Amino acid sequence: MNINGKHYRTIWLEDDETIAIIDQRLLPFEFKIVKLKTVDEVATAIFDMYVRGAGCIGATAGYGMYIACLEAAQSSDFNSQLIIFADRLKATRPTAVNLAWAVDRQLEAIKQAVTVEEKIATAKSLSETIADEDARWCRQIGEHGLKIIEGIATKKPKGETINILTHCNAGWLAFVDYGSATSPIYAAHDAGIPVHVWVDETRPRNQGARLTAWELGMHGVPHTIIPDNTGGHLMQHGQVDMVITGTDRTTKTGDVANKIGTYLKALAAKDNNVPFYVALPSSTFDWEISDGIKDISIEKRNPEEVTIMEGILSDKVEAIRITPENSPAANYAFDVTPARLVTGLITERGLCDASAESIAKLYK
Amino acid sequence: MNINGKHYRTIWLEDDETIAIIDQRLLPFEFKIVKLKTVDEVATAIFDMYVRGAGCIGATAGYGMYIACLEAAQSSDFNSQLIIFADRLKATRPTAVNLAWAVDRQLEAIKQAVTVEEKIATAKSLSETIADEDARWCRQIGEHGLKIIEGIATKKPKGETINILTHCNAGWLAFVDYGSATSPIYAAHDAGIPVHVWVDETRPRNQGARLTAWELGMHGVPHTIIPDNTGGHLMQHGQVDMVITGTDRTTKTGDVANKIGTYLKALAAKDNNVPFYVALPSSTFDWEISDGIKDISIEKRNPEEVTIMEGILSDKVEAIRITPENSPAANYAFDVTPARLVTGLITERGLCDASAESIAKLYK
Repeated sequence: MNINGKHYRTIWLEDDETIAIIDQRLLPFEFKIVKLKTVDEVATAIFDMYVRGAGCIGATAGYGMYIACLEAAQSSDFNSQLIIFADRLKATRPTAVNLAWAVDRQLEAIKQAVTVEEKIATAKSLSETIADEDARWCRQIGEHGLKIIEGIATKKPKGETINILTHCNAGWLAFVDYGSATSPIYAAHDAGIPVHVWVDETRPRNQGARLTAWELGMHGVPHTIIPDNTGGHLMQHGQVDMVITGTDRTTKTGDVANKIGTYLKALAAKDNNVPFYVALPSSTFDWEISDGIKDISIEKRNPEEVTIMEGILSDKVEAIRITPENSPAANYAFDVTPARLVTGLITERGLCDASAESIAKLYK
Repeated sequence: MNINGKHYRTIWLEDDETIAIIDQRLLPFEFKIVKLKTVDEVATAIFDMYVRGAGCIGATAGYGMYIACLEAAQSSDFNSQLIIFADRLKATRPTAVNLAWAVDRQLEAIKQAVTVEEKIATAKSLSETIADEDARWCRQIGEHGLKIIEGIATKKPKGETINILTHCNAGWLAFVDYGSATSPIYAAHDAGIPVHVWVDETRPRNQGARLTAWELGMHGVPHTIIPDNTGGHLMQHGQVDMVITGTDRTTKTGDVANKIGTYLKALAAKDNNVPFYVALPSSTFDWEISDGIKDISIEKRNPEEVTIMEGILSDKVEAIRITPENSPAANYAFDVTPARLVTGLITERGLCDASAESIAKLYK
């Protein structure tokens, strides 16, 4: 999407030997493009979270394997060296499904090529394919979601703004382009439908206030940052027309694991008859599990993400402690929204209900 | 309650000419007692929020009127000067019901006394009565709420900790002592019942993380600070036995206006069969209104409370900006929890249902 009027992806090939990424750790306080030329640098970018988000991590791993081929070609044993690099990349964030998936997909394709030159060409081409595929899926999510927004628009007085609430960052920064939850919003905005986004701050890591607000602002989409406590009140007073969130893992029955606090917004949406949609590329389905609350274990992260806050003090990024010194804090990263609270899923293949039958029909 | 093992109220007479208060603006980063000797100083303490919370503001105004008598006695016209002081105090926070109530109650009593000496003695005595009354009401709320906690304890394995979630600060810092929502918790803790409190951070002003966590810690009550997003997940997993919050205004039908985000916790409590109690001195009832969502107008405060965060950086309190420079923010201070989501009200007179009939029965 656009940054200051110019189109960007989260990752791209700068030239035949260089990957370019946006250093997302610095957003929204600084916009910095970082160049990666070695497997070392790619591994660091993933491990230290210069890049984050399922789609974006997958694409980075895909491009990383192309860089790995270039470096392996300098060694005496291309194949052994490539396996070492592949393991190296996979180890950076072992629980990220898209990471291992992209690396393995590259290894499989590279194996089919015969000469080192062919292997390099294959890896380069596939890295672009993986990124393009991610962008295409997200664009398709946008097209399907746009129809829902158009439907809401027809029920409101002509020209009246449609208010959409989102939680966390399921934006283009988490993918290669468009995002999942934000893709229908960008599609509507670009189609001239007046949309305004309530951006949940999303404590404790503030991905809404830091990333979603920044990317919406850069693309020119009207938005307002709100504390996570606010959505229920807005819904009670008719100020939310729909909710769209992303998801980190979705059961085959339609239960949705997403950033902590999503469940509370889904409850408020249900209580106020506000439609609650979840946008996802099919890669986030977990076909093995049926009961999200029982079967999805929720990551507990460092309490310092709760007690320490980062921001700008006289043009410098500083971190301050916001709690009493001796009070412990707990940091649960996700919660599970049961399917009964989800109005529908927006996937790259189209819409479906959050039910085993409806999902199975779309993904035969 | 206790601070480092010593009992404190939020306000007391240090000597015959001096009020002492805790400067709550600095908590939890600094514990500082401030002495007030003039009406000027009392007005500043209320206006600049050294003291806050309904009961605490009322008590400060009561003591302030005693100081006003001392100062008026130095002037040529005691009665006129006292009215000027009274208006001055009332103007500091015009929407605080307890403030005007305490000032008017003092004026009425002082009027009955004949000599200036008698007027001063009357004001002094009434200022202590107002503070004592507030403390007594809160203590009674604690006694009634304790029975609920004891009831929950009997249903759990003996000695197992009872987990109570609270939102914002309806603690002793908001009153003279004990607090409203926290009073049953202190009563249970002091009675040897093992309690643990999930303290909602309470964005945007962080009264939970700053004040509730601090006062619970100082009194030795086990607690954990959580982002406001977390409560639903904890309830889904059986980690919350009850919720107790305070209220800023309660309709005669049992709708409850309280800090923004309370409604979301009430929804989650309902969805998981967790009892949701609201603790209040009867002074927070608004006998004029029936429909909280329709009739209670919600204060919109400065967006900087959302975009700017205060905390400790190298032993100094600093304020940082945590959002993109050009993203607007909205700051709704309260929301309304409909009576249907409230298990019961805990008042100084006892327990009642959140219904017009049950409330009317308790307050004939």
